[in-house]
Amino acid sequence: MRDVLGSGFVIPVGGAEEKVGDIMILRRFVALCGGPSARIAIIPTASELSDTGQKYATLFTTLGAAETVVLPITDRSHAMDPNHVEPLEDVDGIFLTGGNQLRLSTLIGGTDVARAIRRRNASGVHVAGTSAGAAFLCEHMIAFGREGASPRAKIVTLAPGLGLTNRVIIDQHFRQRDRLGRLLTAIGYNPFAIGIGLDENTAAFIGPDNNLEVVGGGSLTVVDPSEITFSSMARVRKNDPVCLIGLRLHILDHGSTYNLHTREAAPAPAIALRV
Amino acid sequence: MRDVLGSGFVIPVGGAEEKVGDIMILRRFVALCGGPSARIAIIPTASELSDTGQKYATLFTTLGAAETVVLPITDRSHAMDPNHVEPLEDVDGIFLTGGNQLRLSTLIGGTDVARAIRRRNASGVHVAGTSAGAAFLCEHMIAFGREGASPRAKIVTLAPGLGLTNRVIIDQHFRQRDRLGRLLTAIGYNPFAIGIGLDENTAAFIGPDNNLEVVGGGSLTVVDPSEITFSSMARVRKNDPVCLIGLRLHILDHGSTYNLHTREAAPAPAIALRV
Repeated sequence: MRDVLGSGFVIPVGGAEEKVGDIMILRRFVALCGGPSARIAIIPTASELSDTGQKYATLFTTLGAAETVVLPITDRSHAMDPNHVEPLEDVDGIFLTGGNQLRLSTLIGGTDVARAIRRRNASGVHVAGTSAGAAFLCEHMIAFGREGASPRAKIVTLAPGLGLTNRVIIDQHFRQRDRLGRLLTAIGYNPFAIGIGLDENTAAFIGPDNNLEVVGGGSLTVVDPSEITFSSMARVRKNDPVCLIGLRLHILDHGSTYNLHTREAAPAPAIALRV
Repeated sequence: MRDVLGSGFVIPVGGAEEKVGDIMILRRFVALCGGPSARIAIIPTASELSDTGQKYATLFTTLGAAETVVLPITDRSHAMDPNHVEPLEDVDGIFLTGGNQLRLSTLIGGTDVARAIRRRNASGVHVAGTSAGAAFLCEHMIAFGREGASPRAKIVTLAPGLGLTNRVIIDQHFRQRDRLGRLLTAIGYNPFAIGIGLDENTAAFIGPDNNLEVVGGGSLTVVDPSEITFSSMARVRKNDPVCLIGLRLHILDHGSTYNLHTREAAPAPAIALRV
């Protein structure tokens, strides 16, 4: 364990991150994990393709990581198997691939692997997830829902996620799949959490200080419901429009930051940080 | 002229308003124009279908209007023809159909018909427009743009509209066509105006006191940029993400109100007003 003093980063990625050319997000993840000394575990459980894990392993090696290990968990028993838990003790980073987030929550939820990821993240290991892997990182996971720009009653279903943070609810492929409505509905259920909408090829690097930095080629949409003065969520029928008054909205690009504690956003400090 | 003391309502409708069953929006428009005494002019210029005007005329008659007149303006010379200007002197309401808003701005912009509509609205005549007709009502019209949930630099093109209000920029088919991004981009160009996103079968009844009431089965999205603390709009390249910090967002349903002057939203006063 390289950093017993603090928690590791939590890094949701909006899916379809660049893998050739300007590999901004994955390169930053490898560097954060130690660059040439980085040891990274890959959990391809969300995916039903057999080569997803190995593709990321090859990519992380290309990006300079020292060691990679793929944990082929496709069954709950695999997630209780010490052979899949022990490797997590010796890595600097853990990466959850995309696919279907319900595969992650149903196969890993409540298992030794889930407990190990939480414990290791608390001890300084960085945990990233893309697409379904991003949705799964937080305490309240968007399992599925209907798309569209405006919220409708009961169009989104939450499920317990991995629980690395409960400050945010994450949606991904945000611009590409038109998901503002379902994120607003999710936030509307209980406005304690902050809604984070991640475009494709866009990541939030959330540090142990709860400061989030945007990395990538798209936008990160922040919906802060802390000043809501009215919500009709409790009285509307399924698929009806929902009235939500007083939301705060920030659209952030590469290099911008957002503090999940103070709820303040700041632009990228300089043009040099632009994509 | 029934009301020389005040301006008439301006009523943008998000398109696809109900025409059978619960004809909430058009019925409210006819009632506002005087119900059994209502005289309504229909301008079908946005549409390239020859029967669009007559269909609305029949519908308004069914809803109890006393008189309807269709102004078949398909050429700029028609919009300078006294035969099309004079009927506007004797109506209580004017309705602009959907189609292509560039047909409205290119065929009616700067003509006697446009001047007559503005003058009559200032004298108390109510002016409604659906879809393209809604976009055209305001001073700054969204002519066309790319879709998607987050704003991108230069993805939307504004053109001068009819100019009945300059307080709002309107986008329509909002939920159905995923237009938050282009509305945010339009607002980002100059954050003086308020962004109004109208779902289908949803209208804003904007009174002469600048109080707006939502009528219909969908949502009205308000984006208030007055508290923006940072915008990267001036420095980003075409199609790049845009950073916009400090937007206020309200999602309003049937019966909710928004004051364009104070920028305060209020929920529907009672369950009785629900759809």
